[in-house]
Amino acid sequence: MSLIVQKFGGTSVGSLERIAHVAARVGRSRERGDDVVVVVSAMSGETDRLLGLARSVQERPAPRELDVLLSTGEQVTIALLAMALQAAGWPARSYTGHQVRIRTDSAHNRARIVHIDDRHIRADLAAGRVVVVAGFQGVDEDGNITTLGRGGSDTTAVALAAALRACECRIHTDVDGVYTTDPRVVPEARHLEALTFEEMLELASLGAKVLQIRAVEFASKYAVPLRVLSTFDDGPGTLIGPDPEDHSMEQPLISGIAFNRDEAKVTVMGVQDRPGVAFSILGPVAEENIEVDMIVQNAGADGTTDFTFTVHRNDYARTLQIVREQTSQWESSQVTGDDRIVKISLVGVGMRSHAGIASRMFRVLAAENINIQMISTSEIKISVVVEEKYLELGVRALHTAFGLEGNGAAEHPSQ
Amino acid sequence: MSLIVQKFGGTSVGSLERIAHVAARVGRSRERGDDVVVVVSAMSGETDRLLGLARSVQERPAPRELDVLLSTGEQVTIALLAMALQAAGWPARSYTGHQVRIRTDSAHNRARIVHIDDRHIRADLAAGRVVVVAGFQGVDEDGNITTLGRGGSDTTAVALAAALRACECRIHTDVDGVYTTDPRVVPEARHLEALTFEEMLELASLGAKVLQIRAVEFASKYAVPLRVLSTFDDGPGTLIGPDPEDHSMEQPLISGIAFNRDEAKVTVMGVQDRPGVAFSILGPVAEENIEVDMIVQNAGADGTTDFTFTVHRNDYARTLQIVREQTSQWESSQVTGDDRIVKISLVGVGMRSHAGIASRMFRVLAAENINIQMISTSEIKISVVVEEKYLELGVRALHTAFGLEGNGAAEHPSQ
Repeated sequence: MSLIVQKFGGTSVGSLERIAHVAARVGRSRERGDDVVVVVSAMSGETDRLLGLARSVQERPAPRELDVLLSTGEQVTIALLAMALQAAGWPARSYTGHQVRIRTDSAHNRARIVHIDDRHIRADLAAGRVVVVAGFQGVDEDGNITTLGRGGSDTTAVALAAALRACECRIHTDVDGVYTTDPRVVPEARHLEALTFEEMLELASLGAKVLQIRAVEFASKYAVPLRVLSTFDDGPGTLIGPDPEDHSMEQPLISGIAFNRDEAKVTVMGVQDRPGVAFSILGPVAEENIEVDMIVQNAGADGTTDFTFTVHRNDYARTLQIVREQTSQWESSQVTGDDRIVKISLVGVGMRSHAGIASRMFRVLAAENINIQMISTSEIKISVVVEEKYLELGVRALHTAFGLEGNGAAEHPSQ
Repeated sequence: MSLIVQKFGGTSVGSLERIAHVAARVGRSRERGDDVVVVVSAMSGETDRLLGLARSVQERPAPRELDVLLSTGEQVTIALLAMALQAAGWPARSYTGHQVRIRTDSAHNRARIVHIDDRHIRADLAAGRVVVVAGFQGVDEDGNITTLGRGGSDTTAVALAAALRACECRIHTDVDGVYTTDPRVVPEARHLEALTFEEMLELASLGAKVLQIRAVEFASKYAVPLRVLSTFDDGPGTLIGPDPEDHSMEQPLISGIAFNRDEAKVTVMGVQDRPGVAFSILGPVAEENIEVDMIVQNAGADGTTDFTFTVHRNDYARTLQIVREQTSQWESSQVTGDDRIVKISLVGVGMRSHAGIASRMFRVLAAENINIQMISTSEIKISVVVEEKYLELGVRALHTAFGLEGNGAAEHPSQ
């Protein structure tokens, strides 16, 4: 008998029928003899409905009061699911964040969990009950209700799994796991049985939005095995765990290909190549709460440099304006930009121990006549920026070249 | 500067426009220099919506989980009202029942308040904030969320007023106070400026459903002055307070006339007149959770007696059946009933010191040819049961005869 945490998102509990389905699913875990803690989100649409109400009352709703309001969403779900479990014959008890209690800091709307009191939960599990916990919410030192921000239910689930030393944290969602790339772009994309935390972080942050980044970071920090699986069928999903560190022959070079359609780039040319330049450009952008993704700087021969960075496409116009104002008094500098670009990334812990992945990637793209505008690399990831129209072509070519399709282990291409 | 508690029911906070109106109303109290604690209900319809969800999941929803679910209704309102107050420039902070904390016993769905911690509230008031508290809910010793049952928000307001020693507890509703009788039956019904707790208890329990009985009992116990007034206009409402005990000449004999259309009566004739008979008839009725209102028994000369009681009209058929089963083996007894009856009651502390009110009441009804089927009296109330069709005629005749119309003090009829 082992302890598992099962998390179900808003779509999975979006109607009374689905809540009954979730209860049946949890019941099957109980039948197998597992102790179960369930974490649920608000029913789909509810958080947006409540946000709409708040914004009708106050243009910028008071953060403390917004948390009081939003936290009712999950509270409704836990009560209904506990009832559904009881109706199906499984003793169950619900807990709000403050009842558990899940202590957070006081940063309303984006609080961080600092401690979980597991006393109530352990007592209920010992009494044979399923414990149903509201995701996304907690309580600060002074008893104020806090929320963890969008997607916070994943974080709640992982934090509970860590606090309870659960053997697995299962994130039930509307997809059946993680794929080598988006199957809508590459129909041959292969379902992955396992991934490391690092790989998942790179895949998640690059657009394969299966799991919240914070939850993966949390799971990685506390070494909680995460499993992403479908609410609606019985497949094994994808297990995300620590790096096994024995890079056997079967270890694929590349785990997956991520991409991001929403990029835009801004380039400042003819910048004086001296300390502080990067900050003087990006400081004002950061002050406007615009998130910067890739940053590339190339030192030129003439004492000037070209500085390029990417932002979300929605922030493009504002970013251009800020940078133009900032650099207007600089001699000889020139600001250009492009919001018709995409980013494609190869991700895999296997590439750590293999040279030549980057050059192989560039060769594949060149063979398709795709020009690379920017390059950025990390230990387990290589990202390139290309013209928007080449996205599908580039991803498919790379997917084939690195042997990601099919149902077997990936082939190891020669270098 | 004084401290007042203002309670607004579901209709008063039934839309975002109305919540803004309530914020403005509270703002006017602040402008006059009062410290204000606001107690609110769920937006109208919300509690029924949540109940409907629960009943779709589980036929008899688990009481603990039902409280978790229902308590979200008020939680939404407190957040929205706190935002509306802040949007209007009034610093405000919301509190759920557990945050205050309002400690109750563990009787889910009908909990009783045992203690209120006023620490947070006093600190906020001292800091110039309006405090917004969720009505209807509390928390038990083990941290479980409880609710006080329907209308519990009135009780929360009175309990808070008592705990904070507020100078007045204002119950804002959709009527502008208490009247001598229902203005829909007697258009000349007069608005009452003041009533005693006892009078209000008799009027409330008899059908003038302005205030919850439990809240009036609570206010009476802790001598908290209650004011019933309209949310939508600025009238002074009706003040309900302790009996002044100086029955001056101006003290009216009768404060009001209550009536109840939903009565039905059951009579058992030819019952053996011996100890235990009343219990043997009413015991099985009470076991079915049927509430009995009036009970009248008349000893006859032949060693038998007639026993009559009234119940809500909805319970009539079931009650008849229970009593028939119960008495079927008794010799010579006979069960009859009537669900076309109504109850009319005169209420007033003034009648305590005046004989002859009852006989005057009977004379007025006789003059209208209204037959009295049952009579029941208490120190400040006389109730009669009459045929349903005489309700309006009887109430109007009594209202006129006891001088309740007009806008001055009631006249003192000679006896």
